[in-house]
Amino acid sequence: MQTQTELVVKMIVDAWNTQNKRVDKLINTLAEEQLRGETSPGRNSGIYLAGHLIAVSDGLFPILGWGEKLHPELENIFLKNSDKSGLEKPSLDELKKYWNEINAKIAEHINAMKPEDWFEKHTAVSAEDFAKEPHRNKLNLLINRTNHTSYHLGQLVYLEKK
Amino acid sequence: MQTQTELVVKMIVDAWNTQNKRVDKLINTLAEEQLRGETSPGRNSGIYLAGHLIAVSDGLFPILGWGEKLHPELENIFLKNSDKSGLEKPSLDELKKYWNEINAKIAEHINAMKPEDWFEKHTAVSAEDFAKEPHRNKLNLLINRTNHTSYHLGQLVYLEKK
Repeated sequence: MQTQTELVVKMIVDAWNTQNKRVDKLINTLAEEQLRGETSPGRNSGIYLAGHLIAVSDGLFPILGWGEKLHPELENIFLKNSDKSGLEKPSLDELKKYWNEINAKIAEHINAMKPEDWFEKHTAVSAEDFAKEPHRNKLNLLINRTNHTSYHLGQLVYLEKK
Repeated sequence: MQTQTELVVKMIVDAWNTQNKRVDKLINTLAEEQLRGETSPGRNSGIYLAGHLIAVSDGLFPILGWGEKLHPELENIFLKNSDKSGLEKPSLDELKKYWNEINAKIAEHINAMKPEDWFEKHTAVSAEDFAKEPHRNKLNLLINRTNHTSYHLGQLVYLEKK
């Protein structure tokens, strides 16, 4: 018999995995030409949004206390700057490699977490604030990041042929 | 001191409210002309996506055991048929009225739920399946619906001026 805590952690981790699998499928199904295109005229390209999601996922390591980012160089290109920054982006093959690498490592960490661990504070909240706002925990961060992934997935699907 | 169950229900309900408030702000900020436009060439219009989200929210009443839909007529227009179906859509003013009405009623029901109630089965899963898969509960449904809202929110923001 699962406890409610075990159940809820499973539900939230499942939602994270579901959204990421959808992104994964898209990235691996679309042709490079499609991914280079804009999701809507004048909006972010598929490559930029993919890089953005990869950089955000990479950010989970420090914020969840799992260690250092695997590709800190992505932050400047895909988080601090916009698609049209003129900064050189990694090739699609490199991005796919990073995506797989980061996702595999995230899955390892998730598998090693005990349900209770998810209720700890993440590193972006102070101990003082966390004492007053215990919902600002690691699990909440995963909920919010899952919605962030869904948001950009809704844009990435516009790269598919009509 | 909150229990973990209370905490997690708060986190998931907060995420639902956050995403819906973002949609609400967009619907009430964009001009009618913008909402009538397509989110990307050949893709769903803002009006259709708004109606779609309203119809999905209306579907929470029966699926969460809260009663009947307030506007069952939206299902045919915004769930069973596509934007270009040729079916007559409600006016923007009517849609906004439905959106407010449905959201207010959902908030009432959410406020009346005890944390434990969220772990009950929803009406779209059989008692037999639920016994084997207790994660298919009301809370899980809200997690998934929140991601659905985020997905379309990512598309609706493309109606904003660049």
